[in-house]
Parts: sequence; C-alpha cells; structure tokens
Amino acid sequence: MAESTTKTGQPLDRAVLESVLRRRLFYTPSFEIYGGERGLFDYGPPGCALQANVVDLWRKHFVLEEDMLEVDCTMLTPEAILKTSGHVDKFADWMCKDPKSGEIFRADHLVEQVLEARLKADKDARGQTVEVDEAKEAKKKKKIKDTKIEKLDDALVQEYEETLAKIDNYGGDELAELIKKYNIKGPTTGAELEPPRAFNLMFQTQIGPSADKPNGYLRPETAQGQFLNFQKLLEFNQQSMPFASASIGKSFRNEISPRSGLLRVREFLMAEIEHFVDPEGGKKHPRFEDVKDTKLSLLNRKTQLAGSTKPDTLTIGDAVSSGLVDNETLGYFLVRIQDFLLKLGVDQTKLRFRQHMANEMAHYAADCWDAELFTTYGWIECVGCADRSAYDLTVHKEKTGAPLVVRETRAQPLIIEEFEVDLERKKLGPKFRKDAKAVEAAVDALSQDLREKLALELEKSGKIEIETPGVGSGRTELEKDVIKIEKRKRTEYIREYTPNVIEPSFGIGRILYSLMEHVFWIREGDAARGVLSFPPAVAPTKVLLVPLSGHGDFKPFIKKLTTRLRRVGVSNKVDDSSASIGKRYARNDELGTPFGITIDFQTVKDGSLTLRERDSTKQVRASEDDIITAVKALVDGEETWEDVVKRMPAFEGQDLE
Amino acid sequence: MAESTTKTGQPLDRAVLESVLRRRLFYTPSFEIYGGERGLFDYGPPGCALQANVVDLWRKHFVLEEDMLEVDCTMLTPEAILKTSGHVDKFADWMCKDPKSGEIFRADHLVEQVLEARLKADKDARGQTVEVDEAKEAKKKKKIKDTKIEKLDDALVQEYEETLAKIDNYGGDELAELIKKYNIKGPTTGAELEPPRAFNLMFQTQIGPSADKPNGYLRPETAQGQFLNFQKLLEFNQQSMPFASASIGKSFRNEISPRSGLLRVREFLMAEIEHFVDPEGGKKHPRFEDVKDTKLSLLNRKTQLAGSTKPDTLTIGDAVSSGLVDNETLGYFLVRIQDFLLKLGVDQTKLRFRQHMANEMAHYAADCWDAELFTTYGWIECVGCADRSAYDLTVHKEKTGAPLVVRETRAQPLIIEEFEVDLERKKLGPKFRKDAKAVEAAVDALSQDLREKLALELEKSGKIEIETPGVGSGRTELEKDVIKIEKRKRTEYIREYTPNVIEPSFGIGRILYSLMEHVFWIREGDAARGVLSFPPAVAPTKVLLVPLSGHGDFKPFIKKLTTRLRRVGVSNKVDDSSASIGKRYARNDELGTPFGITIDFQTVKDGSLTLRERDSTKQVRASEDDIITAVKALVDGEETWEDVVKRMPAFEGQDLE
Repeated sequence: MAESTTKTGQPLDRAVLESVLRRRLFYTPSFEIYGGERGLFDYGPPGCALQANVVDLWRKHFVLEEDMLEVDCTMLTPEAILKTSGHVDKFADWMCKDPKSGEIFRADHLVEQVLEARLKADKDARGQTVEVDEAKEAKKKKKIKDTKIEKLDDALVQEYEETLAKIDNYGGDELAELIKKYNIKGPTTGAELEPPRAFNLMFQTQIGPSADKPNGYLRPETAQGQFLNFQKLLEFNQQSMPFASASIGKSFRNEISPRSGLLRVREFLMAEIEHFVDPEGGKKHPRFEDVKDTKLSLLNRKTQLAGSTKPDTLTIGDAVSSGLVDNETLGYFLVRIQDFLLKLGVDQTKLRFRQHMANEMAHYAADCWDAELFTTYGWIECVGCADRSAYDLTVHKEKTGAPLVVRETRAQPLIIEEFEVDLERKKLGPKFRKDAKAVEAAVDALSQDLREKLALELEKSGKIEIETPGVGSGRTELEKDVIKIEKRKRTEYIREYTPNVIEPSFGIGRILYSLMEHVFWIREGDAARGVLSFPPAVAPTKVLLVPLSGHGDFKPFIKKLTTRLRRVGVSNKVDDSSASIGKRYARNDELGTPFGITIDFQTVKDGSLTLRERDSTKQVRASEDDIITAVKALVDGEETWEDVVKRMPAFEGQDLE
Repeated sequence: MAESTTKTGQPLDRAVLESVLRRRLFYTPSFEIYGGERGLFDYGPPGCALQANVVDLWRKHFVLEEDMLEVDCTMLTPEAILKTSGHVDKFADWMCKDPKSGEIFRADHLVEQVLEARLKADKDARGQTVEVDEAKEAKKKKKIKDTKIEKLDDALVQEYEETLAKIDNYGGDELAELIKKYNIKGPTTGAELEPPRAFNLMFQTQIGPSADKPNGYLRPETAQGQFLNFQKLLEFNQQSMPFASASIGKSFRNEISPRSGLLRVREFLMAEIEHFVDPEGGKKHPRFEDVKDTKLSLLNRKTQLAGSTKPDTLTIGDAVSSGLVDNETLGYFLVRIQDFLLKLGVDQTKLRFRQHMANEMAHYAADCWDAELFTTYGWIECVGCADRSAYDLTVHKEKTGAPLVVRETRAQPLIIEEFEVDLERKKLGPKFRKDAKAVEAAVDALSQDLREKLALELEKSGKIEIETPGVGSGRTELEKDVIKIEKRKRTEYIREYTPNVIEPSFGIGRILYSLMEHVFWIREGDAARGVLSFPPAVAPTKVLLVPLSGHGDFKPFIKKLTTRLRRVGVSNKVDDSSASIGKRYARNDELGTPFGITIDFQTVKDGSLTLRERDSTKQVRASEDDIITAVKALVDGEETWEDVVKRMPAFEGQDLE
C-alpha cells in the first residue's frame, strides 16, 4: 500500500485533513501566541471529547472487562528508580550538531535521510520507478543538499541498503563512522558535523528544596510505577495470579527534533497494561480459547528479513501453536488490541501487527509485536505488545531487597534429592587461614555432577582435591575430617517465583491521529466538504440539535430535547446560529457528529422531529419519544442506522443547502 | 466545631481511617520500596476508580450541563509564559535552613508553629482550656523545643495573635525580622537559622536538546493554557459570549516541606473552569434566577476580621443583592460548586464558603471565595472561586500583541462627541525642536474639561498656554496656526473589550481525601468495622457478587450476572474467596461498595437472588431481572434503597458471620 486513501477511495490529502482538524480545534500547537514550542500540542473541545471517549472505551474494554487493577502513579520520579530500570544510562538518542548553523539532528535519522535520498537519486538515474515509502518520505522535510541525480556502484547500493536495514541498531561510534565514511555533511550548510553524542530523552528536574542538582525525572512510561507497586497489588488481589495492572496517564520524552504533528510529541497520553503471569507452564491464558479463531494480519520477523512487507493473515490459534507468536497470553492480547482498535473505527485494511526484529527488542524481551496503523506518514506504531520477561521486577528486587515475587503453596510438595556438602568450619579456619573463605566458596560452587564424583572419591580414599583458583598451587586437598558429601532429600512446600510481564502499551495520541486519518473523507458536491465518520461511541458529540431558524417557538422544544437526551446519557450541542441548516450540518460533519435532529414548524404543530445520519445524510421523521429511543440505541450500538431507516418513515422535506 | 466526628457521631480517628485507606489501597506513598519521596502518592485500584468517577461527575455537572469548552493543554510550559503570568517572579514560598541539621523549613509555617506553641503554653500556665485548632495542630509534627509551660505578658500575647492573623502576608524580610525579634531557633537543634530565602515552587526543566539551562516549567495550574487559547476558543464558540473553558489535568508545586498526606502534595489533579464574561453590566448570569434561593454557609471577610469563624447561612440571591458576593456569575458558581460537592457525598454541615481577606487575594482579584471542607486537619480549602478580572488576558495580550479581546458589533452604534485637538506638526518641529515630542504629549494628555476651556480661550485670544513640565519654564504658549481644538462627533460600530474571568478551581485530591473522611464511620459489633458510605454514583465498585461458596453450581450464575450488569453499565466485582460471606461483605464495606448480591442454593433452584445494602446491611430477595433493574435504578439515582425495600420482600436467611 503505497499511498493512503479514504474509505471512498480518494487519495487522502493530509494538508486538507490537517486544516479541518485545526480549524475545528481538534488540536492546535501549544503556546502559539508565544511562537509555539515544537512537539507540544493542546487538544481543543472536540479533540478533548474524542480523547475522553477513547479513554473511556479503553477502560471498559480492558480494565473493567478483564478485571484489571488500575493505578494512578506520579509522573515525577526520583533518579534511583530510573537508574535501576536502565533509563538513566540507556534511554537516549544520538544527536549531531551542525557547528555552522547550530542546528541539531538526530544522527540516525540524518544518515537514513541522506542514504535514502542518494538511493532515490540512483534509481532516478537508472530510470527506475521509485516506490515511495511515505513514512520515510515524511521525515525528509529539509532539503538534502547532496541529492543530485547520480548513479551509484551496485556494491554501494547494496551497502546502503544493508545499512538502512540496520539503522535502528547503531551506537554513537558507529554512527560517527557512517557519517565519515559516507561523507555526510550538514544538510543546510554542507559543513562538517560535530561527532554524535548521546542525549538522554528524559526531562530532568529537582524534587524538593534541598537538592542542589537534578534528582528526578518525568517518567518516560507509566510502567515503572506499576512494577514498584507489584507487592501491594498482589496483596490487593488476595495473592491470586495471574492478574494485570493498568494505568492511563501522561508520559514525557524530550525528542531531539520532533516533527510529524501528533505522532512524535514531547508529552503524550499513554495507556499501559502490565499483565503478570507465571513463567512456568507456557504462559497460558484462560480465555485464549474464546479468541483463538480470530484472524490477524501478522508481519513476522522472517518476512521482514527477506525484505518483504507482506503480512500473513492467520488465526491467533495457528500463530501461537506454530510458535510464531511466543505464547497464549501475548496472543490473547494481540486479539484484544485488534478488537479495541476496530471498536474505535480503525480501518482493518490499515492495521497490521509487526514483529520486532531480534536486534530491535530490549535484550530481556522474549517477543514483541507492534500494532501499526497505516497513515499518510506510512505505517505507524500505535500499540506495542511486548513480553518483558521478569526483567523489571528482578532489577527492582535486587536493588531494594523488596520481595517482588509470588510465593505460593505447592499443590504437591516438591521433593528434591541433592548432594549436599558440610564443612567443618572450626578446622577449616586454623588450617587455611586467610584462604579459608576462598576454599569455602570453591566448595559451594561445586556442581551436582562433581559432588557425586567427589563423594565416591572421599569414600574410597578419605580425601579429595578440588580446584581453588588463587589458593596455593590452584588445587587444594581436603580430608574427611573437614568435609562431608552426602545425598539428601528435602521437601519444598512453597514455590517462589518472579512473574513475567506481558505489556500492551498504547500511545493514545498516535491512535487518535491515525483514527482521524482513517475516518476522514470528502463528500463531493457543490463544494467538497470534509466528513469525519467516527463511530457514535467515540464521536466527540453524538447529536446536533438544529432549529430551522431563530424563531421563538422552537426554543422550548430545544430545551426539552437537550434535557431528555442528557438524561439518557447522550451528549448533544445546539446550533441555533443563523447559518443555513445545510451549512450547520456541514460544520458538524467536519466535527464528526453522527446524528442531527431538526426542529421545524411541523415540530411545533405535532411534536415530530427529523433525525439525520451523518454519512448517508438520509433523514427519517418520527415522534420525539421514538427519535430519542432510536438515538439512544444508535449511540449504545444496539441498533444500526439501517435498522432505523427500515422502521421509520424517510423524510426529504427541508432544503438543506 | 472543634473536633471531627463521623455521621454516627463517633469521634473520627484519623489513624484508623488512614490504616483502612492504605490497607485497601485507596492510596499509597509513591516509591515506597525505594524509601518513598515526600509529597508524592499513588492511587491504587479503589482510589483510582473513585477519582475516575468524581472526574466523570465533574465533567457531566460542569462541562456537559453548562456546555463548556474542554481543553487539554500541555503541562510542560516554556518560561516566557510563566514570566508574563507572574509565576516566575512571585510563585514562591520563603524557606529557612537550619545550618546545624541541614533541615529546611517553610519560614511562615515555622513562625506560626512556634508562636502557637508559646500561646498554648501560656494558656496552660494560666490554667485556661485550649480550644484546639486541629488544622494547625496537624502541622506541628515536629517537637517544638521552646514550649515549656510559661506565662507570657498580656501585651505579647496580643502581639503574637496579631502576627498570626497576618502570617500569610509577610515577605522574606518581615519573616527574618519576626524570627529575630521572637528569638525563633531551629526546632530540633536550637541553632540560629539562616535568613529566609525565596524558593520558587515550580519544577524547572529543559525542553529540547539545545537548551543549556532550564527553559521551562511544569505548570502550577491549568489556567494559563486556557488563557493562551482564548482567541481560538472564542472563534470555536462562534464569537458568542459569555462562555467557559474547562480543563482537567495534573499540576505541580514543589512544596518546601509537604505533610498532611493527600492534602499537600507535589503533583495533583486539578479541574479548572475559566468563565469569560463581559465586565460591563454587572457580570450577570443567565441562569442565576434558577439558583437564587439556594442557601449557602458563608463566612465573610468582616466576620473573620472580627476574629469569629461563625458563618452566616443565606440565599445566594440575598448575598449578591447585598453586595457580599460581588456578582451573579460568581454567585452562580458558588451554588454549582455546592451542588457538585453534595452530589459526591460531602457532609453539608462540614462545608462552608470562606471569603478571602483583602490582603489574601491577588492584587487583581475582585472577589474570592473558597469552598472549605472540615476534616481532622481543620477546614481545608478544596475549591477556590475567584474573580481574576481581566488580568491574565491583559498581560498576555500586552506581551504578545495577540488580540485576546472580544470585538462585537454594537446593537446601537455609539455616538461619541468629544473635543479633539489637531496639531500642525510641520510647524511644531522647527519651532520646538527637541521639545516637540514633549509638547505633543502634553497636548494629547489634556482632559476634555481643559480642552473645552482652551477651545474658548483659543477662539477669543488666538493663543493658549499649556503646562509642559520639563520644557522651558514649564508652560508653553501655542498660537492658532499650530493648534486647533474642535468638538466633533464620531460613531463607533464595534465594541472591543477584554473579558473578565471567573475561575472555579478544584483540587481533586483534596476533595477525595475530605470526602473519604466525611463518609467514613465505624460499624459497632463483635469487631468494630470501618465503612465508607460513598453514594453509588462515586463508589469505586457498585456491586459485589458473592457466591455462598466455591460450589461449581454457582459459577454460571456469576458469569451471567457479571455480563448483564456490565451491559447496563454497572461495575461489579466477584469475591469467590473462601472467607465467610460476612467477612467478604466487611471487606467491601471498607471499599465502599454500596450493594452486594448473594448467589446461594435457592438461586440454583429458582434463579432468585438477594440484594444487600451496605449502610443498613438489610437484604431483599427477588428474581434476577428485578434485582438487576433495581440495582441499575439505585446506581443511576432514580430510586433510593427505601423505595426498593418497600416493594421487595425482605430477606434474613443467611448467617453472615
């Protein structure tokens, strides 16, 4: 899919959509009257309502339906926590400064842009058609200076392509080498760039009045707060496993060079789930059976390695049983993520799950799939679903000593039979003096196999020799008055383990933006007009009330309707401006309001109203009671517009333009 | 009211309540396994659900019912904005360091604590009973060293009391003077304190990679984002006034020494409304008529100055017409705030509105009332309702030049008849040279009265003399070839004005905590057990489902009930643990779950269920359909428990302990 199209098959013109979204105040650059600040956006009333509806749906779909334990943790985070989690040392991008202009670039993005531009120039020179990858094109806003049409050596083309495939994995030294090797210069000045340096993406701050330097950060994810509360949550859950915690809140990343509108911002709303599961027994999920026949579009690692982007469509049952998706729990969540996105109105043909490449994942991750949505910026990661293994709980446990573990009584006590070693410490000390500890450590480290052999030897000859690096000759003799080796049985009644974590992590802003692209289309007519076809459940406002004119007779009807609709939980707005009904509806099509109710002179006579549906612009006419019942059923998803049209008389009276 | 009591008249023991709230994970200190960080708390599942319900109710009560324009602005805020708003220079507290221990104190709190302790010691010495102000007692966790029981001079007592009355208004120099004058030392060491210095309460940070020093802050309030978007919001509202914007989100204050649990924290959820109103015409409100007979408990400025804390109960109609509350819009919001708090379950006898003292308000504020809730910490400010006048829009307009104004066509064009002055600039320059500008300014500054007089004079004698300070002798003669003064008419069709802002500002965390105190009580019995009597609308979970035992026959009923309740929007939890039904209900009384449904062997026979109400512990028995209908009506507030008891048969079968 090279180009984004609307649901009516028109090419999607991002500039037109953005103009609608800004004019209707879905979002707007923050601090615009002060010149703005890159990577920061405010949501206006419709964006805010859309966001609240999506969050509400998320809470119902995940937290309530799956009985998750929602927590709300602070964004301010002391340094120690993020040091342990690895963020202080590793949560960085490489940046490069152009000394002439002072411009700062993300080093990997710059290398990528230049090499891609050269490859494109090469293809042009060879007369090949270029298949545009919109995602990458979008990054290249700046004019790259050295892209004259020029043929490259075949070997160099291959080298460039290999470099690009691995671009996410280079460190600072490697990026510096690439910049030098490929003679990459400041794109606007042509100057030699300063060497890349690491830039930590967390915002630093000082907590409390006594700190004399930054001692904390704004969290880069909501996950850590959930891990730190693991013990309390397990207790709250009455020690019962598995369970999931969930959190909805803002996180922060100090992007080096934010672009791409709402897709790469410095402050963003996340919704994250940490599902804690026993690592033993294959991470089964009790409800996997219910979802196993659901089909997903899966772009696996192997396909990507082969240079293709064609996903396979298969059931999650097959994907898990073949080992493509690592385990049931991960698979279950992939389905639930897809269900959620489709509920919001995401276009299923623009949704795929892409598996992370081995070198793309954190070292501790077992498997990771991103739900990606196709937009005019290309395929965009909107939800990550990773198996974080036991990493986080383990590092925090090691650092603090807090028992971030599950202790459960074994159904069957575990009987363990092992060779155990007893040392006669009273004799060991005087005999080996300063080396006594080293000898003891060497004995403790003996494997079960060795112990078995040594036990026989000790029995036979009354003494053994063990390796003791750094002590005497490197080998030490022990006689049976100092050491005893025996096979013994012991019984363990309690099992203690660190749970693994499956983490579905949602970028709400990215989902909102991608959704707006998916539901946008242009209604052809006298004037082409934008429509945002949000499903009723997420639409910012559900019903627009439109009196035919400002006539006083309409007012009591409006007031009554507003109150009645609000009472049944249906948000509504009145537009009693002097614009024509057609213009007022057009304005609301841009706002994505799915239904409109008109109050006209017939209403004053017999109380009947007309109900209009946004996408078809068809209208029906019925009594107030019937219209309210229909609207409620439509908004709750219990009826479709087709149902309503079948049972209510159509209306084609008003001149809408 | 000297002491806080529960609704059943028991003294409220904060330690008991806090232990319930922490054990049930309503909230918990953040980062506890790392030793914690003062002033930061996480909400666990019930706290999180309570918060979400309160926010949802707030959104319905204000944003939807009043058709407000909700916005979601970023927390990260560039320095320039907060410089203009005055926060960079003035949003500070005074702190004092003990050089011996390194402890840091908030200077005003320290002075307050010491003087109060001395006054208390004096009263003890005089043998008077001391009426304890819990709020202030709570601040004194540290042992104050110099509070031996000692009688003070009568004059000194009065001086201390006067100082305490004004404690909120002292600057650094004055605090330093008080510390010296009253010989106040480090409370734990007795050491001489370092002089107070200002500590800005905003968290600083660096936005973007190129900043070499902090260039931004975390917002201390959500208000500024709303002001900056004023123009866009007015446009969105189709230029129609008045209107309100609203915002729900976290704000941050780097408290010097946070204590008092959830009441003084460094990161907190706010909900703020900025109602923009025309300053002309008395700030009337179109719906004031609907609320004018509502009674409020008002503690006015005059009463406070007289040293009393006894509020008056009067209707808001009377309060506004007598001028006590400045205007209708402010009055309207006080009523709406009270309505909201009562909906949440706040105890009306523990709610008052306190007017700010003249010196307590920002210099630009016209009037300000705080909704205060009574708790074991004393009266706590939970909602502020201020008339911020045109201050914020004006300063941002002046700084940026953005037209943060309303321009409206006058219904009647305004005809203005004024004396206007024309100067012959070509002659003025050569004549007055370097003084020409000063002369021109002096002419421009002439009042209408003077202009009228001078016009006559000029007519009569052909020349006039005006005052020109700093030019020549201080008076300058102008002849009629240089100056002309005429009465002229002009017509203004457009009126341009800067709206005033009425700002109701809610501290959600403070409201949650106070509410939990208001609804907490102890059920006497074999074991005294805590109950949180949240109204159904805000209760974290609405219904607990309790199977009599783990018997397999109960499972399908539980599953069906869960699904049916969820479908009608009623959140529910299952407790199928092995504890007795009584214990399980006790646990949920602590969680504030208003209703319980028991599934027993009768259910398996005839499908009937029992429904239990938390506060009365009474039960009824009916069919599944009837129970679900009743629960839905109870949760939606359409029926009370009394209604249900009247029409359904009581049930007293199970042994609940």
